[in-house]
Amino acid sequence: MATSRNHRPATRASRGIPEATVARLPLYLRALTALSERSVPTVSSEELAAAAGVNSAKLRKDFSYLGSYGTRGVGYDVEYLVYQISRELGLTQDWPVVIVGIGNLGAALANYGGFASRGFRVASLIDADSALTGRTVAGIPVEHSDELEKIIAENGVSIGVIATPAGAAQQVCDRLVAAGVTSILNFAPTVLSVPEGVDVRKVDLSIELQILAFHEQRKAGEEAPLEETAPPAAPPAAAVTKRPDSGPDGDVPAVMPA
Amino acid sequence: MATSRNHRPATRASRGIPEATVARLPLYLRALTALSERSVPTVSSEELAAAAGVNSAKLRKDFSYLGSYGTRGVGYDVEYLVYQISRELGLTQDWPVVIVGIGNLGAALANYGGFASRGFRVASLIDADSALTGRTVAGIPVEHSDELEKIIAENGVSIGVIATPAGAAQQVCDRLVAAGVTSILNFAPTVLSVPEGVDVRKVDLSIELQILAFHEQRKAGEEAPLEETAPPAAPPAAAVTKRPDSGPDGDVPAVMPA
Repeated sequence: MATSRNHRPATRASRGIPEATVARLPLYLRALTALSERSVPTVSSEELAAAAGVNSAKLRKDFSYLGSYGTRGVGYDVEYLVYQISRELGLTQDWPVVIVGIGNLGAALANYGGFASRGFRVASLIDADSALTGRTVAGIPVEHSDELEKIIAENGVSIGVIATPAGAAQQVCDRLVAAGVTSILNFAPTVLSVPEGVDVRKVDLSIELQILAFHEQRKAGEEAPLEETAPPAAPPAAAVTKRPDSGPDGDVPAVMPA
Repeated sequence: MATSRNHRPATRASRGIPEATVARLPLYLRALTALSERSVPTVSSEELAAAAGVNSAKLRKDFSYLGSYGTRGVGYDVEYLVYQISRELGLTQDWPVVIVGIGNLGAALANYGGFASRGFRVASLIDADSALTGRTVAGIPVEHSDELEKIIAENGVSIGVIATPAGAAQQVCDRLVAAGVTSILNFAPTVLSVPEGVDVRKVDLSIELQILAFHEQRKAGEEAPLEETAPPAAPPAAAVTKRPDSGPDGDVPAVMPA
């Protein structure tokens, strides 16, 4: 990555935003929303970076893709930046979503306030269990999965959330895609196959816990006895001494316009 | 970042792993575990990078911090890499965790298979509602929050998961920390204050959805009429034209040893 580019994006330079920047925008938005709720009018890049858990130079670079630069000595206008990031992410539109699989997780997601506040409207809750049909979760009646295609079509749903058991997820995914859904958020503990043009993101609830464990291990110190399990048989040949190809450092590729 | 360094980490070069690499290790582990379950013995950096959603040059660099380089023409040994990453993350140890707040989300987390398979053992489920005390969720009896301090001490718990409503989260957090918990995974929609030395990670279930919305917006094309909400009043002065400081590109700082 170049350290000081002269590129100066237009007011809305959304085409070439790197994927890594896209992934950080929700983190900034979360921190900015917290400031907004406390009626904080402006924020410095350092404060915001700390709140979002990001390096401040990286934050400034990310915001340069949005054409947002702040004012020296004043910082960024919180409300306007919330608007800019929301617009960039597409959150100023209304996104109807369906949640398929209304067990504990599906019900928790239906009740989750963080969706509605981000422009996501739960258009329907869908479950294969007839016993749930007609019951209300978070004020929304559960519909039977026989109706899935009809629900997608009538509500113009392009984003589906899968919270079924692993065994049912691929079939649900196939039906959602056939019905016109082009983005899938997968909470089921399985890998989904989708055709070209469909985006899948998988949520692994243990990932943040793994990062905490890394730091806990460090805090505990290397002196403490580690209860490590034995490594698998003999260290295989694949584990030895080849220098990595010294290719380019590998930024995440830029998001290409559709 | 330099593109081709000569640094050649020792077999276990864990001290200076950049935080961004730490954050990607669980993604590799998830992809590797899927391969392992299909009994795939080796994987190329390109295949693994694609499965983890990461650029392959970045993957090779990340693995170089683990001292793991693969074999040209063969790739990485899946089982050994699972072991290396698990060890690095501290997942070969047993981590007892408590989950506080056993609503839909807490119950979903208690049932979540992905914790146990990563070395996290749910030592206790805790709720303030006496009506839940003694009920069993995922085979674990719910205990009353009056017992929180005792449970933490008896089980040697250092990681707490908060799945309470927002209003209760800070108080629960304070009690967990006072009882000796040093890592908090927060699902409650609020920002927690903790003393120095305590790590908090917040899970925002809408973040992946926001990234999907970004891509949906791109797919829909800029031509389609956007139902955008109006921007806030006048664009404030803070939104205009200052070039960002052209500081260093801002890698996430390396994790320092405790």
